[in-house]
Amino acid sequence: MKKAVCLLSGGMDSAVTLYFAKRDGFEPVALSFDYGQRHEKEVAAAARIAEGLKVPHSVVRIRLPWRGSALLDEAAKLPHGRNAERMSKTIPSTYVPARNSVFLALAFSCAEAEKAEAVFFGANALDYSGYPDCRPDFIAAFAEAMRQGTKTGTEGKPIRIMAPLLHMTKKEIVQLGKELGVPFADTWTCYEGGGRPCGTCDACVLRAKGFYEAGIEDPLVGHAGLF
Amino acid sequence: MKKAVCLLSGGMDSAVTLYFAKRDGFEPVALSFDYGQRHEKEVAAAARIAEGLKVPHSVVRIRLPWRGSALLDEAAKLPHGRNAERMSKTIPSTYVPARNSVFLALAFSCAEAEKAEAVFFGANALDYSGYPDCRPDFIAAFAEAMRQGTKTGTEGKPIRIMAPLLHMTKKEIVQLGKELGVPFADTWTCYEGGGRPCGTCDACVLRAKGFYEAGIEDPLVGHAGLF
Repeated sequence: MKKAVCLLSGGMDSAVTLYFAKRDGFEPVALSFDYGQRHEKEVAAAARIAEGLKVPHSVVRIRLPWRGSALLDEAAKLPHGRNAERMSKTIPSTYVPARNSVFLALAFSCAEAEKAEAVFFGANALDYSGYPDCRPDFIAAFAEAMRQGTKTGTEGKPIRIMAPLLHMTKKEIVQLGKELGVPFADTWTCYEGGGRPCGTCDACVLRAKGFYEAGIEDPLVGHAGLF
Repeated sequence: MKKAVCLLSGGMDSAVTLYFAKRDGFEPVALSFDYGQRHEKEVAAAARIAEGLKVPHSVVRIRLPWRGSALLDEAAKLPHGRNAERMSKTIPSTYVPARNSVFLALAFSCAEAEKAEAVFFGANALDYSGYPDCRPDFIAAFAEAMRQGTKTGTEGKPIRIMAPLLHMTKKEIVQLGKELGVPFADTWTCYEGGGRPCGTCDACVLRAKGFYEAGIEDPLVGHAGLF
């Protein structure tokens, strides 16, 4: 069976991507990062999702001696109440320098060591926060760098980056997740680490837009409305 | 003063690169990785070199749950006695999957957070062990991925990758290091972590070739001859 390394943050998009990889006939290995993000709910959610799907799950711990992001700085205020349609126009303070490059490079390292054929990445470039490392141009350029800079790539067996959600709206992602049986209640999206989703950070706003437009209830908030 | 992040392994090439960056007018920040390599002499050497040049030094610790390299596996036998001229033709068992991609991605993360203008990387593609992630094509492709996937890159202020040793022979690297006053005695090159360099691993063979051809004594071995 063909193996794939799946980046799993614990959020909705990466959970849908993991389920997609499995349905697509891959044997997934889930990979998460404990990189000093503001709260540990994300990694706990990732563990629940992987366990629910009965796939192996590795968590790599990295402590960066630098900051440069509101997500790495507990004292920083996160943006709230932003309009979903305008989000993708600017890069917000929650951008973590080169984060997806670090995650993808480590996923390729894992994929080469585990003889996997693909790296699944839940990036989305439609209903998203404007992070440059979620865009198609970045993914294509990174794949080319990996063709040049890995053993498998230079030997003519490049590992592919699969980003099935890249051109989907949040509505379509919620619909696909429902179809695949993704346990939305096990995911965690909110940037704040509270008892319940805050409803107003960028991540909550985009998630709510998806459930609202799909007309599906988000089990984490108990309704399909906008906050 | 313009800042630069300098990848510093503790070996000769990265030490020469760090000294080069400083002479080139940069204010360097040295960055090393404790990634579960076979011995800790490398990281200790990096700390000595950074201290000698009085530049800040960060060590990022990463423990990979996978292997895929003789350098990460204490039970594996390392190649010995290979011919320097033929080394670059094949990828040896000491290749660590996607290692330089992981290091460069983290260096870019640090560079963005620290507002550095460049990442210095001591890769060499002439007298080298055949690692794909030391080749010019890889470096160019990785730089393009970073232009697409970082805030600074997409905002038109891309961080440059500077690889001043890329097209130099080991002889020229030794000569440049001597000219710059690099403390060769503080560096560590050998893949084995013994009391003295083994003299026969790929790293020792290439280093010895450089000192021999430059006619300079390597203080770690006490002579400029080949082993």
